Amino acid sequence: MARGRFIVVEGGEGTGKTTQAERLRAFLRAAGLEVVVAREPGGTPVGERIRELVLHRGDVAVPPETELLLILAARSAFVRCVVEPALAGGSWVVSDRFEMSTFAYQGYGSEIGVERIAPLNAYATAGLVPDLCIVLDLPIEEGMARQRRQGKGGDRFESASADFHRRVRQGYVEMSANQGNAVLVSACGSPDEVEMRILGEVVARFPETSGSGGAGSMMRRRA
Amino acid sequence: MARGRFIVVEGGEGTGKTTQAERLRAFLRAAGLEVVVAREPGGTPVGERIRELVLHRGDVAVPPETELLLILAARSAFVRCVVEPALAGGSWVVSDRFEMSTFAYQGYGSEIGVERIAPLNAYATAGLVPDLCIVLDLPIEEGMARQRRQGKGGDRFESASADFHRRVRQGYVEMSANQGNAVLVSACGSPDEVEMRILGEVVARFPETSGSGGAGSMMRRRA
Repeated sequence: MARGRFIVVEGGEGTGKTTQAERLRAFLRAAGLEVVVAREPGGTPVGERIRELVLHRGDVAVPPETELLLILAARSAFVRCVVEPALAGGSWVVSDRFEMSTFAYQGYGSEIGVERIAPLNAYATAGLVPDLCIVLDLPIEEGMARQRRQGKGGDRFESASADFHRRVRQGYVEMSANQGNAVLVSACGSPDEVEMRILGEVVARFPETSGSGGAGSMMRRRA
Repeated sequence: MARGRFIVVEGGEGTGKTTQAERLRAFLRAAGLEVVVAREPGGTPVGERIRELVLHRGDVAVPPETELLLILAARSAFVRCVVEPALAGGSWVVSDRFEMSTFAYQGYGSEIGVERIAPLNAYATAGLVPDLCIVLDLPIEEGMARQRRQGKGGDRFESASADFHRRVRQGYVEMSANQGNAVLVSACGSPDEVEMRILGEVVARFPETSGSGGAGSMMRRRA
């Protein structure tokens, strides 16, 4: 059985990652593939408990180094208990966030040096690298406005400063330019428009997603 | 104001660390020193929540790499929120476990390579090294018998196999021989006997603990 592919949807707040990850799952399933969808931090029982600690800490003081190690702890379980077994079994995995989020938020946003994060992250991922990272990009004012309309903005990162989010976006843009497995996709416009851009990138890289009729016809129907 | 000293009480299950850390605190206070006592994993609000995840996980699967990163996350908060501020303010810190536990339990016990743990641990501790590690040593059968008598043995490590605990003990013995800041102390005999051995090591290394009458007389009275 062929090993599955690992696709990550990345980006700042309000860029529509969760919606697009769900649509990508539907597209891949229509192409006849087995697909697992997950999110980070989280994705496992221990990871969801860590997610609570990181995102909804209340008054509990959490230094940035502690936050980083917690996120990596959740990732190490996610890789070993979810992603690797799924890929080995032939399933595709679509994840809402993965390691680029850590470099963007903790590295660029919280200004922990990227060179300090890299070896720690490599331990957490056991060297697993996504086949494709789709990085949704949006002016931060637009992302924050979308969140307000959806009644979001309550967790630790959603409520961070505009300067923080500007650094996060800058990080995503730089990394997308430097990583062969990442592509920057505009998140402007309607969810349907963004989806078409994403599916275009996916079909171009993975011909198996368009070959058997279902996927290609889905794209044509929606385009 | 002089910087405080950082003393760690280490050792396997049933060696009496918690009791001896408390007695050491009383001894140092009698010598006129400010003392903070803490335990690992834990020691901070976020650390205590992590401790629950590590020690009382129930049916939740936690790969060894995840466990290691969780313990290091707790340590990173402990160092930054408790130990460093206390030492900088002139207090002494007595901790029930610190980094040697990670090398002994995760390194020797769970057989994650010590050379893989060291750089991750250095990130968590920001390079802070204890002034003295008192490593309580006991044949593992005796430690396990003591735990049974106390009704313990319920947490994740307490209930591990005898082979695991044999590797942990071996790790402590080797590290104590190789680290200039560690001393192996027999935990055989009564708590009073073990305390006298510990205080002997402490007074020999830190003359300020015996100089002013209180501490020296306490040792003489108890000896």
